Amino acid sequence: MINPSLPQGTRDFDAGTLEKRKYLFGIIEKHFKRFAFEPLETPTFENLSVLSGKYGEEGDKLMFKILNNGLDEKTKHASLQQDLEQKIFMGKSSMLFSDRALRYDLTIPFARYVAMNINQLVFPFKRYQIQPVWRADRPQKGRYREFYQCDADIVGSQSLLNESELIRLMISVFSELKLSVIIKINNRKVLNALMDYIKAPHLLNVFARTIDKINKIGLSKVFEELSVSGFDSNQMDYLDQFLKIAGPNDEKIEKLMQLIPNESCQLAVQEIKAVLAYCDMNELKLELDTQSLDHVLELDFTLARGLDYYSGTIFEVETVSSNQSIAGGGRYDNLIGYFSKNTLPGIGISFGVERIYDMMSELNLFPQGTSNQQKILLFNMSYSNDAMGQKLQQETMMLLSTLRKAGLTANWYLDTVKFDKQFKYAEKKQYTHAVFLGPTEIENKQVKIKDLLKGQEVLTPLANVVFFFLGT
Amino acid sequence: MINPSLPQGTRDFDAGTLEKRKYLFGIIEKHFKRFAFEPLETPTFENLSVLSGKYGEEGDKLMFKILNNGLDEKTKHASLQQDLEQKIFMGKSSMLFSDRALRYDLTIPFARYVAMNINQLVFPFKRYQIQPVWRADRPQKGRYREFYQCDADIVGSQSLLNESELIRLMISVFSELKLSVIIKINNRKVLNALMDYIKAPHLLNVFARTIDKINKIGLSKVFEELSVSGFDSNQMDYLDQFLKIAGPNDEKIEKLMQLIPNESCQLAVQEIKAVLAYCDMNELKLELDTQSLDHVLELDFTLARGLDYYSGTIFEVETVSSNQSIAGGGRYDNLIGYFSKNTLPGIGISFGVERIYDMMSELNLFPQGTSNQQKILLFNMSYSNDAMGQKLQQETMMLLSTLRKAGLTANWYLDTVKFDKQFKYAEKKQYTHAVFLGPTEIENKQVKIKDLLKGQEVLTPLANVVFFFLGT
Repeated sequence: MINPSLPQGTRDFDAGTLEKRKYLFGIIEKHFKRFAFEPLETPTFENLSVLSGKYGEEGDKLMFKILNNGLDEKTKHASLQQDLEQKIFMGKSSMLFSDRALRYDLTIPFARYVAMNINQLVFPFKRYQIQPVWRADRPQKGRYREFYQCDADIVGSQSLLNESELIRLMISVFSELKLSVIIKINNRKVLNALMDYIKAPHLLNVFARTIDKINKIGLSKVFEELSVSGFDSNQMDYLDQFLKIAGPNDEKIEKLMQLIPNESCQLAVQEIKAVLAYCDMNELKLELDTQSLDHVLELDFTLARGLDYYSGTIFEVETVSSNQSIAGGGRYDNLIGYFSKNTLPGIGISFGVERIYDMMSELNLFPQGTSNQQKILLFNMSYSNDAMGQKLQQETMMLLSTLRKAGLTANWYLDTVKFDKQFKYAEKKQYTHAVFLGPTEIENKQVKIKDLLKGQEVLTPLANVVFFFLGT
Repeated sequence: MINPSLPQGTRDFDAGTLEKRKYLFGIIEKHFKRFAFEPLETPTFENLSVLSGKYGEEGDKLMFKILNNGLDEKTKHASLQQDLEQKIFMGKSSMLFSDRALRYDLTIPFARYVAMNINQLVFPFKRYQIQPVWRADRPQKGRYREFYQCDADIVGSQSLLNESELIRLMISVFSELKLSVIIKINNRKVLNALMDYIKAPHLLNVFARTIDKINKIGLSKVFEELSVSGFDSNQMDYLDQFLKIAGPNDEKIEKLMQLIPNESCQLAVQEIKAVLAYCDMNELKLELDTQSLDHVLELDFTLARGLDYYSGTIFEVETVSSNQSIAGGGRYDNLIGYFSKNTLPGIGISFGVERIYDMMSELNLFPQGTSNQQKILLFNMSYSNDAMGQKLQQETMMLLSTLRKAGLTANWYLDTVKFDKQFKYAEKKQYTHAVFLGPTEIENKQVKIKDLLKGQEVLTPLANVVFFFLGT
């Protein structure tokens, strides 16, 4: 007999937790649907050839790989064994043992799906996906090895109106969740323009990766790191000015154009202005109850977003209270480049649902009333073996069935135990009502109902029981 | 660039399929809830020590194991390499490379959960679980390597009323799904009593496993197999009589008791009679619109159910039309024996949702109307860059937002293309309504709505649009 345990970084979800998770996922899904995204689910594991090399060296390491089946039989053969030994010697044994790996994110499986079905799909294609992913990260508070992602993407459309649609989607979701957020916006083309202008295009990725850490390590530390990355003092001077651009959105744009007076910067600014203009409309101001969107939609040229494939607008959502990132996304030139010769531009966002869940728990933002629903326990009346006992059971089953058919949650305590124990069960399991159907009640065609929250008891005609519960 | 493919035996689920799957899962879940089962979700993978040895040799082979992380680094070390080589030589390499495996069913993870939380749980504990499981079976029509299971169990209650509750649950589900079914019932104690009586208790498992195949290979073939399993001619004579017991339920019981006149058979019959009596009640007869339950609840002494852990009532649900098994379950003495010194009796059922799905698709039982919902496409009016163009965009966004806030699914065609192309998009994506908001409409504070199914166009005041959609 073994002492059972959970794998590191994984969780069981009980009824209470699931109710809250379903509430959260349900709200996000509802808005996805209203915005005309359609659902997609992909398999838990993908061929390794589909996933490997897509998430950098780190990703390849943190991927959960699946052992090939029938390995034990195969490894008995001498020829294979030699090959095995060589791979082992090279430290590449996993290559030989695994052809599949668990889903690492929702984007690559989506790209694989689109590439495989490109002739059947109708573009623009708007899909959402809410599924778990797995990463062998070191588990810590709030970071799990099995966690949900929650993505929405639009592929096959170049219009910058898509940006404003996704911003509206995020605002709808977070305002229903009662989380105050700031949406930070930038455009990758700004970073390109800057690097072009100071003649350091080869340092773009280093630059993006370094400023991505501003929130974590602060501006001065970022500056320190940049100074040893290969920029000369003249370039560093530009970066200094760039990173210190501040003020309202309009002012920032002015300063940016003064600092980088080239064509590619103008193009970037055009895109930014269009996106801001598409958002700066009455309907959104009404929703946010504000005259200016600046404090909700904040232009932030230091926003980089780690992923290499972003090519235009990028955004990141932070909570006002704790400056934590809880959603993000951006525009990419080509979703399916890994899998197809076609190109397909798109834009997507991802909600950090695990962090949002933790935050809502801390801030007590889950409605108490989710479990507010009525739960009815029919008590066991210790039925005798005579005609009356059988009649009671018969009537109890009838009542139970009637309640359930009306859509109510109803249970019958089946084992013969004292009322005391049944009351305790009802309390611990948070039943809202106890129902008693004994000989006296049967004779009077009545039923006794006890409201377990208020402690009140009433007698109701048997024929009126459903009305009693659905009428309240 | 690689040509992407799906791992063998796995599937992508698109919006149309997901809608049907959610309809099916949703109905089952609804009834689970009405019967006061509460949800549980367990991790996708479990420690191998929890799973291995629980599903027989076959199960251990078909389990998807996860490669340990950091393997490549480790295998460089000479000491480990020696160990590796030895395991490889013995054909046991997988043992060394994996500590975890994907969920193989929902029962063992549930038992692990109960054992780990036994002091917090309140019994009787009624849980349901709807999650995928993975088996490396050879894929074939209707059999997948990733598929959903759908279980409900009650643990911590001995009452035979539980049997009748689960039977009622199955009847509720299948009657809402419009599938005509027969529920076959037996009790493992009948098989025990028979083996005791003919003095062949050691052949119980062989007997159970062989008669389990009756539906597949037929009675005469079963008899043939039994005759070479170690039974003598006298015993075979008894088995012959036993397997040929026929007639209505009452008659079958009579014949059984004549054939096996021992105490353990009497006990089994008592249990069977109690379960049948608990079901033979007005409320169920009303629901099934029948005077006798015999044709729905069929006593079948040849029913064995493969799993060794069943100890009392067992049942299996077959469709009337095709005799296919689509659900089953039974009573077990102890759920948590693998993981705890405590014992905990229980009873459970499992819905074969993948088969039910396939069957409902074939029989056209999914309501056409699931996707009956209104989907509204706002057309792109090729906005000019002047004040009117901006006003149109502004008003379109306002309308879009209003529709979505009312809970409707609304989309705006964002790219500037000809109406022709937008109409094609609307048709392919099954939009029910096209909405036009152009200069003339704006001027008259109206909007033009085209019903794409009926082909009718109407003009409606802008202020009445929500009423137009929610009123119909």
